[in-house]
Amino acid sequence: MKNFKYYNPVKIVFGKNTITELPKLLKSRKKILFLYGGGSIKKNGVYDQVIEALSGFDFIEFSGIQANPDYASCLDCVLLAEKENIDFILSVGGGSVLDAAKFIAAASCYEGDEPWDILTGKVKIQKAIPIGSVLTLPATGSEMNSNSVISRREIGEKLAFSSPFVYPEFSILDPETTFSLSKRQVANGIVDSFIHVCEQYMTSHIGSPLQDRQSEAILKTLIEEGPKAILSNKDYDVQANIMWCSTNALNGLLGCGVDQDWATHGIGHEMTALYGIDHARTLAVILPGLYSYLREQKEEKLLQYGERIWGITMGDANVRIDEAIARTCLFFESLGIDTRYSDLGIDEDAPEKIAERIDKKSYALGEKQNIRGPEVIKILRNLK
Amino acid sequence: MKNFKYYNPVKIVFGKNTITELPKLLKSRKKILFLYGGGSIKKNGVYDQVIEALSGFDFIEFSGIQANPDYASCLDCVLLAEKENIDFILSVGGGSVLDAAKFIAAASCYEGDEPWDILTGKVKIQKAIPIGSVLTLPATGSEMNSNSVISRREIGEKLAFSSPFVYPEFSILDPETTFSLSKRQVANGIVDSFIHVCEQYMTSHIGSPLQDRQSEAILKTLIEEGPKAILSNKDYDVQANIMWCSTNALNGLLGCGVDQDWATHGIGHEMTALYGIDHARTLAVILPGLYSYLREQKEEKLLQYGERIWGITMGDANVRIDEAIARTCLFFESLGIDTRYSDLGIDEDAPEKIAERIDKKSYALGEKQNIRGPEVIKILRNLK
Repeated sequence: MKNFKYYNPVKIVFGKNTITELPKLLKSRKKILFLYGGGSIKKNGVYDQVIEALSGFDFIEFSGIQANPDYASCLDCVLLAEKENIDFILSVGGGSVLDAAKFIAAASCYEGDEPWDILTGKVKIQKAIPIGSVLTLPATGSEMNSNSVISRREIGEKLAFSSPFVYPEFSILDPETTFSLSKRQVANGIVDSFIHVCEQYMTSHIGSPLQDRQSEAILKTLIEEGPKAILSNKDYDVQANIMWCSTNALNGLLGCGVDQDWATHGIGHEMTALYGIDHARTLAVILPGLYSYLREQKEEKLLQYGERIWGITMGDANVRIDEAIARTCLFFESLGIDTRYSDLGIDEDAPEKIAERIDKKSYALGEKQNIRGPEVIKILRNLK
Repeated sequence: MKNFKYYNPVKIVFGKNTITELPKLLKSRKKILFLYGGGSIKKNGVYDQVIEALSGFDFIEFSGIQANPDYASCLDCVLLAEKENIDFILSVGGGSVLDAAKFIAAASCYEGDEPWDILTGKVKIQKAIPIGSVLTLPATGSEMNSNSVISRREIGEKLAFSSPFVYPEFSILDPETTFSLSKRQVANGIVDSFIHVCEQYMTSHIGSPLQDRQSEAILKTLIEEGPKAILSNKDYDVQANIMWCSTNALNGLLGCGVDQDWATHGIGHEMTALYGIDHARTLAVILPGLYSYLREQKEEKLLQYGERIWGITMGDANVRIDEAIARTCLFFESLGIDTRYSDLGIDEDAPEKIAERIDKKSYALGEKQNIRGPEVIKILRNLK
């Protein structure tokens, strides 16, 4: 096992009718920024629940945060937060709203001229406005981590930052808030969570059996519960299980003491930045090609995954790995998520365009830092 | 899934040579109490490592904390902490030293006359001196939770308390510090951790598949790594895996949203209070009888445990449950831990004495609160 540090102070409040806990959690906040996305929380009753819970608090609203939250909107909100002396940001929605909240919280306390530096890594933030969240879409794990991903559409960039200052103070997870999600959102969330686990699990790292099994616990549960949620997302226990899987998939625990990969995400972010494709859908087309291309490097773990998750024990290593990848694709497809690059209907030369962007980075991708432009082309075109 | 709250702000610093991180973690503490047990940390080099790390800090030592830490010693230390204006307690040792640190931290800030009230639950503490720990014996999980168990030998009591104010601020876990443990300590730690998982897993609660698998992940890893550690406890990876299992077994995550039992512990604490038997060894003789006695109530989970952990799929429910219990006993025995009550060599009428103490409590034990004195006798005597 590698040396590691683990710290995660987020208070999770999970279950039915837990939005009513908000007043206790907000304590004596003086001026709250209530941040949300489009109108979905007004349709599913969450907005009304939050407004009721905020009765007696001084708050203002800022809405319109997009999926893949945009830098420009965030900056508008930073101006508002500064003008209004906001001392707490309450994010209500999915991971995009919460990622925006984290960036706004950090940028509002940042003294420099160019908050984009927070995302490029040029500066390390030293403080942030405290954040809380009401999560309505299980997917990104943002509710229990210190990560945020922001898109800057004007220059076609999508970058992430992480800082202990942007851990949500609390996250309220009421599975009933997910009952109004579309099948597409449910499927995206399941695949996103699944691949968050894979990024920490499917490496050449061997010898951390607890972390492997903690990862497999989530993968198995998503495979078991996911298809039920696609049939109907009104079963409380199914939604609760998926929601808790999603949080556990990216709260840092799985990555303790092991190597991590994140090449699928690295390539996926470029694909979303260029073509605006749903995050999860980029991951689902990249992952199969990546594992096929890196089958030797990841052989031992791919075989373990095949055996423990899919019961694949017959055939030589190549056959078993092919079957493990095929079963993974079938699972994604059963949820309605395409797994072939050609299904995306984007430019013929998209792999080359993405590769060019990857080559411009100062670092290579993957657990072994061996993924640059040429490898990206092979992965996306499924070449050897 | 049941509604739940989860909050665990302990900073884990895990790995080789991590005691050198102490100065950074202690920041600008003014007066540190360095708390430890007997002489073992002087023999294995941990004492010297800590003294070196504390160079430049103002600190005093308090040693002599026993296994099953005693109330009287803790009170001596409270007097010292108050006299010396201690603003941080550094626990160096196993769970007993850390449990003592938690109680001392709370009692030092308690205004009332009788700190025992903290343990009886008469008062809820409102503050405590901050604590940090260097863990040298994986077993209790105290390094990543807010629980403490204190014995009061003069009246033969052993009680627990829990408070968010006594979460360690940090816990340093260096697996190399466990290389000098005796086989008995290693075995006790493995069984203690295993049964911590069982207390949260082996209930009649069904429908939280992620938590079940997170529990099974630890059980399987302990079964795999435990015997290796008994052969030799100088294999870094084996010790690291056991240490991380032990922390994960009782950091609160497994118990999220599920019913919990803790009857084995409730009975075990009485046995230790009366006869001074090692905590883990009391659990190992109680658990088989408890599961046999409650086989109907826990049937579904016992069958799941038998199948997923031990591969037991043949036979009717009773046969499979008997086999699952037998395999559990064989595992404990393979580590050198007895599983029959008669092996303990205590009074013939010990079950009745323990039952009498259980009957004096204001609450019944177990997930269904259906374990009182008469049931304890049946469990310990393996009667139906």
